[in-house]
Amino acid sequence: MEKLYVIKIGGNIVDNPTLLTECLTAFSKLKGQAILVHGGGKLATQMATSIGVEQTMVEGRRVTDAETLKIVTMVYAGYINKNIVAQLQGLDVHAMGLTGTDGNLISAHKRTGSAIDYGLVGDVDGVNTNLLKKLLEDGIKLVIAPITHDGHGQLLNTNADTIAQSIATGMAKDYEVHLIYGFEREGVLSDLNDPSSVIRYMDRSVYVSLKDQKVIFEGMIPKIDNAYLALESGVQSVIIGKAEKMNDLINGNAGTTIKI
Amino acid sequence: MEKLYVIKIGGNIVDNPTLLTECLTAFSKLKGQAILVHGGGKLATQMATSIGVEQTMVEGRRVTDAETLKIVTMVYAGYINKNIVAQLQGLDVHAMGLTGTDGNLISAHKRTGSAIDYGLVGDVDGVNTNLLKKLLEDGIKLVIAPITHDGHGQLLNTNADTIAQSIATGMAKDYEVHLIYGFEREGVLSDLNDPSSVIRYMDRSVYVSLKDQKVIFEGMIPKIDNAYLALESGVQSVIIGKAEKMNDLINGNAGTTIKI
Repeated sequence: MEKLYVIKIGGNIVDNPTLLTECLTAFSKLKGQAILVHGGGKLATQMATSIGVEQTMVEGRRVTDAETLKIVTMVYAGYINKNIVAQLQGLDVHAMGLTGTDGNLISAHKRTGSAIDYGLVGDVDGVNTNLLKKLLEDGIKLVIAPITHDGHGQLLNTNADTIAQSIATGMAKDYEVHLIYGFEREGVLSDLNDPSSVIRYMDRSVYVSLKDQKVIFEGMIPKIDNAYLALESGVQSVIIGKAEKMNDLINGNAGTTIKI
Repeated sequence: MEKLYVIKIGGNIVDNPTLLTECLTAFSKLKGQAILVHGGGKLATQMATSIGVEQTMVEGRRVTDAETLKIVTMVYAGYINKNIVAQLQGLDVHAMGLTGTDGNLISAHKRTGSAIDYGLVGDVDGVNTNLLKKLLEDGIKLVIAPITHDGHGQLLNTNADTIAQSIATGMAKDYEVHLIYGFEREGVLSDLNDPSSVIRYMDRSVYVSLKDQKVIFEGMIPKIDNAYLALESGVQSVIIGKAEKMNDLINGNAGTTIKI
């Protein structure tokens, strides 16, 4: 099967022009099919502040009211997405930027029934893998902004990690999918204060033992549990590491590689 | 040859949710291939005001400095484009929103050498008709925001009328193209104060005679001259009329139809 890299980059990269350029340059050299999913960054919060839209955070998550949705749609789908695409085009990458709404790429529904009302936030129902495949086969590298829709005209703010994972699992039946999460650390660390303590390889038995020893804890556990969900759905490997080392992550020379 | 409608709607429609919905509903019923090009509207100016970015207008045109480009990219490519796409998806239209940057759809260069420096404004160099054709053949209705790029990573603010015309002429060798300009009037009027005085049909001889009689003047002349440029490049007809009567414009029951 052909290789497909699904790469998620977060706000810390998006906010830093130098790191973003490094990451996109690595992306431009990638052999094989690739989909880049980007998160938000500080610009949405800055915009909200400057136009006087109060932001409510509950347990570290943004509550998306109508005005906030307007801002994240502008910033994620407009500013960030199109600047990434223009940069990639400048690097001779045949890039195209889309949201989940475009071509009904990612259908979702407004989250309801949770204890906390996060507002206009979408939970993913499905991925239009036929369209993704067609575009990839036409030689297009896709850049996806984390906005979806409910199929009835309503845009929804959606977690970029979830989008990356949904795309990766949806495409796993047709491609050898490698899901890469670029974040602010070198990988899964055995000592949080020592960036060189990266756990380079982790299968299920290693994970269970590290969890038992409390080497892996808190925020990292849901990330790795999600990685295993993706792997169980047919994704070949999940790699977690520093986004600006994208080249090394892709080549297996950095980060933590998680397998079943 | 298959029919292709290239439809441009301006700010007056984009700013008015009721008119926009009417227009998109008409668009959703359209038989044949279709590309919708949308302009800006007041939201960009409102955004600029609320975040304190001063807008310079020269001869009715916005000067696009870096901060203004950021705003128009957010508003046109983000907010307006994705809301139109979500609404069309809600009307069961397989819509996809793109800018000229995506897939290098519209290549441009920064305008230089004009007496007035409009800043980060793009003049169109070419249209990626192969990609447009592929997407149309896949059953996709395209929604285009008026942002292009220079191929070196720089986004450019670009006139939506020009984009519509460039797409129409570029596609004329493969489709029977009808270029529709939805604007605030019923069409070309013989009496500006009488909306019922629409000139329903205009060929070159009618145009010359109306111009001689000063029935058509000022702002309308460049619009019609541009229409003739499109027609000379193979576009089948150019129709100008009220955007909310899109159905009637398409069926030839309203507006002014311009032919060679």
